[in-house]
Amino acid sequence: MTTPDFSQPPLKVVTLVYPGATPLDFIGPAMALHFFGEVRFYWKNLEPIFCDFMEVLPNATFADLPEHFDVLLVPGGKGQLAPMGDDETLDFLQECGRRADYITSVCTGSLILGMAGLLTGYRAATHWAALELLADLRAIPVKARVVEDRNRFTGGGVTAGIDFGLSLLAKLRGPEAAKLAQLIMEYNPAPPFNAGSPETAGPELAGLVTAQSKAVNEEMRRLIAARKDRLGQPG
Amino acid sequence: MTTPDFSQPPLKVVTLVYPGATPLDFIGPAMALHFFGEVRFYWKNLEPIFCDFMEVLPNATFADLPEHFDVLLVPGGKGQLAPMGDDETLDFLQECGRRADYITSVCTGSLILGMAGLLTGYRAATHWAALELLADLRAIPVKARVVEDRNRFTGGGVTAGIDFGLSLLAKLRGPEAAKLAQLIMEYNPAPPFNAGSPETAGPELAGLVTAQSKAVNEEMRRLIAARKDRLGQPG
Repeated sequence: MTTPDFSQPPLKVVTLVYPGATPLDFIGPAMALHFFGEVRFYWKNLEPIFCDFMEVLPNATFADLPEHFDVLLVPGGKGQLAPMGDDETLDFLQECGRRADYITSVCTGSLILGMAGLLTGYRAATHWAALELLADLRAIPVKARVVEDRNRFTGGGVTAGIDFGLSLLAKLRGPEAAKLAQLIMEYNPAPPFNAGSPETAGPELAGLVTAQSKAVNEEMRRLIAARKDRLGQPG
Repeated sequence: MTTPDFSQPPLKVVTLVYPGATPLDFIGPAMALHFFGEVRFYWKNLEPIFCDFMEVLPNATFADLPEHFDVLLVPGGKGQLAPMGDDETLDFLQECGRRADYITSVCTGSLILGMAGLLTGYRAATHWAALELLADLRAIPVKARVVEDRNRFTGGGVTAGIDFGLSLLAKLRGPEAAKLAQLIMEYNPAPPFNAGSPETAGPELAGLVTAQSKAVNEEMRRLIAARKDRLGQPG
């Protein structure tokens, strides 16, 4: 087959949003997936949520979760400390874990998944500046754009969500579906600089980001330690 | 200098939004620019706007335009026929053109700019499936991710907005600023397929997209023809 199969039902994608989620973390994959699915944005209520530079409107609450769906998607972001320490959100994610075929995240969204015990014993990716925290969560950190381990799909930082979204779409609806999405999205990247990783950006710029991340990483480590009895044991 | 200059005032970025604008068209560049600026979303009113798979909330109206600002950004999208044929929006963009240092677009946003007469005589990019329409608008079509011509910056389709946003940030705040944004966004792309252009995706997938675009391209051509006396003359 060299064209996509349009006969399958739309993918049901449950996306967690929260104050301070990074818009690009979920909008990259949402765009890739929406050509073959219905993407909805879940939070505790339907009020607008401020995310970095824009307000995002949830269109479903935790109570609206379908009995069964294809994909749970959790984005990262500056505001992730709150959901990482919030039982209501983590309980919701555990319920998602029971009802979803694929449990996924982009960027530091994997740390939220991990706090819900959903990455214990799984290989996973996250933003480069937070990679070591995955081990605290009893996941296996992998430095990659996209990591697949059984039904877990996790993406690296922010823009990795596009590579992630296309990879996940290929898994769920075949490579021709993903190629069509890539073509419509004209995803033929040509970064103006070679600075997308700490190794290529060099120690000064990497040091700036590491310094900025230090306090929040320490706070995450405390949250993880406080929850360590509830993370479960690797397989 | 090997670190960014943080001493300059925040860039003022005026982003047009409208029903059916493609979220990724403006959220890619908005993310790159927001590290060094304030990005606002302008429409006729502040009601939520449905865009492909999510609701976007404008936070400024046409009446709120500052006397002077750094960047006008116009995204493309499925809903672009309406603004292309709407005098109120085109008048607003012309006023933006008088007040902005840089006049910019991503994807088929360039066709909206062109309808406001803002690309007449300028080299410009757009989504690959709409490239020929730029000539109807008396612009000079260029097949590229990012095209700079005097104070016009235009990006190619959808994801080109990330390359565009980083390039524009480099122009306005220096290459170290853009490299820092690229590093935080972990923009180190690794597309899972080589299908981001019609040449690499092949004739079958490209044909699907071309067939989908045909009706809207014809409608755009009619709108452009009807406005040809108001596009001005090159140079």
